[in-house]
Amino acid sequence: MSSNTTAPYALLAGENPVFLAYVTWACILGIKMLLMSPLTGTFRVKNAAFANPEDLPKQTTELKTDEQVERVRRAHLNDMENILPFLTIGLIYVLTNPNPMIAIILFRVAGTVRIIHTIIYAIYPIRQPARAICFFTCFFITIYMAVMCIIRFWFI
Amino acid sequence: MSSNTTAPYALLAGENPVFLAYVTWACILGIKMLLMSPLTGTFRVKNAAFANPEDLPKQTTELKTDEQVERVRRAHLNDMENILPFLTIGLIYVLTNPNPMIAIILFRVAGTVRIIHTIIYAIYPIRQPARAICFFTCFFITIYMAVMCIIRFWFI
Amino acid sequence: MSSNTTAPYALLAGENPVFLAYVTWACILGIKMLLMSPLTGTFRVKNAAFANPEDLPKQTTELKTDEQVERVRRAHLNDMENILPFLTIGLIYVLTNPNPMIAIILFRVAGTVRIIHTIIYAIYPIRQPARAICFFTCFFITIYMAVMCIIRFWFI
Repeated sequence: MSSNTTAPYALLAGENPVFLAYVTWACILGIKMLLMSPLTGTFRVKNAAFANPEDLPKQTTELKTDEQVERVRRAHLNDMENILPFLTIGLIYVLTNPNPMIAIILFRVAGTVRIIHTIIYAIYPIRQPARAICFFTCFFITIYMAVMCIIRFWFI
Repeated sequence: MSSNTTAPYALLAGENPVFLAYVTWACILGIKMLLMSPLTGTFRVKNAAFANPEDLPKQTTELKTDEQVERVRRAHLNDMENILPFLTIGLIYVLTNPNPMIAIILFRVAGTVRIIHTIIYAIYPIRQPARAICFFTCFFITIYMAVMCIIRFWFI
Repeated sequence: MSSNTTAPYALLAGENPVFLAYVTWACILGIKMLLMSPLTGTFRVKNAAFANPEDLPKQTTELKTDEQVERVRRAHLNDMENILPFLTIGLIYVLTNPNPMIAIILFRVAGTVRIIHTIIYAIYPIRQPARAICFFTCFFITIYMAVMCIIRFWFI
């Protein structure tokens, strides 16, 4: 899999550890991100903070916003801003036939920091710069992968 | 197309009905999601609820938020939270060479419930649990596909 | 690369200019979109408008919202609504083996208008319909690509 002449499509193969690591971490992060919705729902019920009249349980009569709900929603939005580009750019990065050791470590680190990011943003908030470090680690990994893709496949 | 030894990339083929169904439903949902923007715009004009000073028509002088506009925006955000992961995870799921009957039904059901979700959230709101059922159907299909991808290509 | 009988996966190749142009513009737009986060952060610091208590610098005691910060956030959200579907639908569109000249021009135009969109929305706001033109240009390109994908691979 390490030849420079391998066609990009041929890298989408069960024998390519970079592809396998991408799929595993992309799906872990996808599931993690999806779980933000039920987490929001749990806090909405717990704190009786609903956004739509039709969602109100019988004993509740008013819509309201709640800081804990808004915090989870900000974490969810941050996930979309960062995990979704990571999913697409990561897939293209696999097609550049990167050094397997580097690529696999980048996927592992990016996946891990995004999980930690959620814990310390939405569940147990801790003081900065913890969250900023998690954010920028995945941020720069995604930028790095995008730049590598552009260098490898440049055609403007 | 049903051999377990087919390379993942070879599944991106016009003869693979799973790939065809994925493309069709991914593009239908992509178009559906994009149309939320003009829908928001329509309600913004109708209810004179604009978010930017430069968007104000001559006879309007104030920015305001409007419940109908916010409802469409929540539906749009919910689309992004669910349809965008579905697009990427669905593509990876095609590469796992799933049972065609199961995969095609999952794409059809997920696509259909997300269309219904939009109608009953943004256009004709009806009482719960209608929207929750639509939401969780696509939600669990995407989770299921992600888990299948992880099982098939596990490499952490 | 122009034969109608080329397998979709074989189009993910270094010799296919459509694939190269897709990768280049997808990554440029991905980086552009990611940069909206530090841009938001810059305005948050400059205007002392923070959303989380743990983000507050020592001399600031209150959370607040700021119009300039909200404007950048709206531009970022608009990017997610439009660039993220473009990334996935664009990749599928490459697999339809489109006319290279048309496809490459579409990628170039969509990429350019989204960059201009950000400048005139988040940085130097100018009067409409400048932003609307940028928005709808990329919007209709993405819809066109999705329709072409559906026509080519139709299987409902």
